[in-house]
Amino acid sequence: MKRSNRLVILTEFFMENPRRHIQLPYFVDLCETTKSSISEDLDIIDNVLKTQGLGYLERTTGAGGGVKYIPELSKEKSLDFVGDLREKLEDANRILPGGYLYMTDILGNPKFVREIGRIFASRFSKLDIDVVVTVATKGIPLAYSVASLLNVPVVIVRRDPKVTEGSSVSINYVSGSSRKIQTMVLPKRSLPEGSNVCIIDDFMKAGGTINGMISLLSEFNAKVQAIGVLAEADDEEEERIVTDYTSLIKITNVDLLNNKIEVQAGNFSIE
Amino acid sequence: MKRSNRLVILTEFFMENPRRHIQLPYFVDLCETTKSSISEDLDIIDNVLKTQGLGYLERTTGAGGGVKYIPELSKEKSLDFVGDLREKLEDANRILPGGYLYMTDILGNPKFVREIGRIFASRFSKLDIDVVVTVATKGIPLAYSVASLLNVPVVIVRRDPKVTEGSSVSINYVSGSSRKIQTMVLPKRSLPEGSNVCIIDDFMKAGGTINGMISLLSEFNAKVQAIGVLAEADDEEEERIVTDYTSLIKITNVDLLNNKIEVQAGNFSIE
Repeated sequence: MKRSNRLVILTEFFMENPRRHIQLPYFVDLCETTKSSISEDLDIIDNVLKTQGLGYLERTTGAGGGVKYIPELSKEKSLDFVGDLREKLEDANRILPGGYLYMTDILGNPKFVREIGRIFASRFSKLDIDVVVTVATKGIPLAYSVASLLNVPVVIVRRDPKVTEGSSVSINYVSGSSRKIQTMVLPKRSLPEGSNVCIIDDFMKAGGTINGMISLLSEFNAKVQAIGVLAEADDEEEERIVTDYTSLIKITNVDLLNNKIEVQAGNFSIE
Repeated sequence: MKRSNRLVILTEFFMENPRRHIQLPYFVDLCETTKSSISEDLDIIDNVLKTQGLGYLERTTGAGGGVKYIPELSKEKSLDFVGDLREKLEDANRILPGGYLYMTDILGNPKFVREIGRIFASRFSKLDIDVVVTVATKGIPLAYSVASLLNVPVVIVRRDPKVTEGSSVSINYVSGSSRKIQTMVLPKRSLPEGSNVCIIDDFMKAGGTINGMISLLSEFNAKVQAIGVLAEADDEEEERIVTDYTSLIKITNVDLLNNKIEVQAGNFSIE
């Protein structure tokens, strides 16, 4: 097979299989070529990915050695994207009764969801993560986006048990904003004991929901390695109970009187 | 820029932007080259995609002309994937009390979800679809997978209204299996009037839920162009009320007594 054809096949493969470890003989067969040609192809792809700020190919040698595409969005591209997002969110038409912000269209756009996931996956790239955990419903698409780029499964915590998921573990927790006691459940067979998890959600105020997830996960002896939220908002009445997290944007002010919203970049941009 | 580098950049772009229409000058700038070189690159990529059963590049000429990557998984690859899925599902450990089947691990695997979405997106490739609609919770990842490949947004129907989504339209419907009256809501601003929609869900028995979605969508004057369900199951007591749909697998028998499950390919494989 010619180099030009091989480069298309290999690039497509890496884009569809991020973080999947592949031994070179697989590509030698797939492209009907030699190991040294594949090696040169990988150099070209690695170089382009780095130049374009899209990540890199991680290569290992020796027995069992091979190659893995690590997607990492450059800081510059991440900041550009979050800047666009802030602009979109500062539209006064988004203000809902009660001072909430309409974000359903953003979360409904697969392209945005993919980019948000890419920023988290880049941020958590060096961590040891076995599974992404989220709570139904709005965090689900973001969780899948992060998980697909980290090449790990998604586990969804629910508010109510479902008959189609078998026996579950449930906990009660106090919601930060409403001060109500709520329930969270996780099917027993959905999460192996002692997993390294990354928690993803769309929104965090005081952090009651995420704190509830942490309690529930401790029942599975899971280790929380990272927490990512798309948007955080200040809660004047409550102190934040979750402090170690990554946010992409921060809603600093929803001014119902003057119909104005202020959105800043989240803490991912610091450092 | 050299051809080898251009091919990596262009392939990456198409994989991340399916069905996005791009005019050639965009690529001429991106790759610092000439229109005729880009044109040759596109020929190479189109040819490889077709040979690999991954779809094709759709090119249009004249003013506003350009190129668009149409992802279409070949029939052969689709059947292979569904064959693997059937094998996984026929594991007797999946039987839950009540004769339900545990599928949460399949739906929690982003790679499977992506492939399932790819089969639906290929099947519905020629249809005019503006938006993918699903109902919370389990169909959500599948809906995003289909939507990302069709390059359209996702709209999620809920069982209960949320304060963060503004005013909503709600309907009551009779669930096919439990015969209970249930509610479904859709925020008013989430779906433009008269949209062409594709309904995606994980599971269908008699079809009560999907029929409820159709009723709710008619309140928005939406036109249902396609219905896709991952798994269908026979319901002996109920006649199916939804008849025009595409299923990937069909659960034909869950034998609690002998601890056996039978799964067949769904109707997508016929014709």
